[in-house]
Amino acid sequence: MEEIRMEKLYEGKAKIIYPSSEAGMVRVYFKDDATAFNGQKRAQIAGKGSVNNQIASALFGYLEGHGIPTHFVRQLSEREMLVRQVEIVPLEVIVRNRTAGTFARRYGVEEGRVLPKPLLEFSYKNDALGDPLIYPEAALALGLLSEAELERIRTLALQINTLLKDYFAQRNLELVDFKLEFGRLPDGRLVLADEISPDTMRLWEMGTGEKMDKDRFRRDLGGVEEAYQEVLRRVQGL
Amino acid sequence: MEEIRMEKLYEGKAKIIYPSSEAGMVRVYFKDDATAFNGQKRAQIAGKGSVNNQIASALFGYLEGHGIPTHFVRQLSEREMLVRQVEIVPLEVIVRNRTAGTFARRYGVEEGRVLPKPLLEFSYKNDALGDPLIYPEAALALGLLSEAELERIRTLALQINTLLKDYFAQRNLELVDFKLEFGRLPDGRLVLADEISPDTMRLWEMGTGEKMDKDRFRRDLGGVEEAYQEVLRRVQGL
Ligand SMILES: Nc1ncnc2c1ncn2[C@@H]1O[C@H](COP(=O)(O)OP(=O)(O)O)[C@@H](O)[C@H]1O
Ligand SMILES: Nc1ncnc2c1ncn2[C@@H]1O[C@H](COP(=O)(O)OP(=O)(O)O)[C@@H](O)[C@H]1O
Ligand SMILES: [Mg+2]
Ligand SMILES: [Mg+2]
Repeated sequence: MEEIRMEKLYEGKAKIIYPSSEAGMVRVYFKDDATAFNGQKRAQIAGKGSVNNQIASALFGYLEGHGIPTHFVRQLSEREMLVRQVEIVPLEVIVRNRTAGTFARRYGVEEGRVLPKPLLEFSYKNDALGDPLIYPEAALALGLLSEAELERIRTLALQINTLLKDYFAQRNLELVDFKLEFGRLPDGRLVLADEISPDTMRLWEMGTGEKMDKDRFRRDLGGVEEAYQEVLRRVQGL
Repeated sequence: MEEIRMEKLYEGKAKIIYPSSEAGMVRVYFKDDATAFNGQKRAQIAGKGSVNNQIASALFGYLEGHGIPTHFVRQLSEREMLVRQVEIVPLEVIVRNRTAGTFARRYGVEEGRVLPKPLLEFSYKNDALGDPLIYPEAALALGLLSEAELERIRTLALQINTLLKDYFAQRNLELVDFKLEFGRLPDGRLVLADEISPDTMRLWEMGTGEKMDKDRFRRDLGGVEEAYQEVLRRVQGL
């Protein structure tokens, strides 16, 4: 059920947002484009758009089924999902279960150290500034969100972590960290938005620690398409 | 009462630490050296070492008099103070009353916006990593300090802010932000350590907003020595 092409509303690094004929909705189109290190590294990952759309659709469905409000309405086609249009809270919400990536580099620690409890970090979603880490108190002071919204995001992010850790553990994958975005519906309610996919999570094969996510692209490890496909197979397999 | 010169224990960007003949003590020698932007800009500010030693000595004395435990014992000479030797907690504790400096640059906001309440930020004291901003929860996870120490530091830093804001307001200077370091005594108690001076604070002339601190050096505003001298005069004047 592909809708007719219309003028795009926004084109980002990995997705394009198109208007929808349904009121209050937009269509998210998943591209094969991959970027890393704040846009410095760019390439295409064959089939990624399709895989990520299917993984994100499945994960949003799973989370909705467990009481998490999301923007997801339904999958429209191989590369498109229908979502409720929201006003994105300009924060990237990062949940970390182990040290990895930016965190490990920033503080000069090895990857893979288990954190004593899940660590919630926020970065100010602003490409020109390089998405800088921001304290919740600073985000409040700059008016990026309200205190009630902050508390709601904290609660939802930790619930989502518990749900996704469990989901992937059943698929022999360890959820190391991930990035979320939240948005405001017209009535002000917050919902989980954007996407959840191997582009926005670190997933390590349990036992071997093999990377099954965008780090294969970032670090030129090879087998990028295959890893994304394998995650999709496990998502569909249970 | 200059003590005999001995092998230095540590030489930093602005100070040298020498052993002392008194048990558990060290001598802090204040240099004229000034650095900015993580050591990329370097120069000498004539008389700075002497001025900062006198200002820091006066401020430590004032804070001690108001119940804040510090490493300060007494001023030894024009450029030296005697302090209790501590194990420095590797965090820079930053208190902000208005947006300025790194904060304003990092988030792309103008300087001088009043924050709704004092904002406490921590950065990991590590020159090689560029003193990166760190969440308190991350500092705990990395074992940089204990939870009890974190709570104590929070309390002390906010008390110090209230005391110093008041102190400088009486001298027609507004305390915009400042950096503190804390250290552990052999018995584990935390004390305020390092220095408090125009190198480590932003002070704006009340009314005009003229900068009376190291920003004159960082931004090539001229009148650097004069501003430091003027702060000292006001510290001594009341
Ligand atoms: N439900 C939604 N309504 C409106 N905008 C959304 C919604 N979900 C995600 N977005 C935004 O759409 C964009 C998705 O495209 P993406 O390629 O991820 O962009 P970016 O390069 O900015 O990360 C993001 O800016 C994201 O915040
Ligand atoms: N009471 C103390 N005991 C031991 N070390 C201290 C004490 N007070 C400050 N220090 C440390 O001594 C050094 C002072 O020199 P400085 O030039 O400021 O160094 P840096 O370039 O590392 O900032 C700092 O590393 C500071 O943490
Ligand atoms: Mg994005
Ligand atoms: Mg120093």
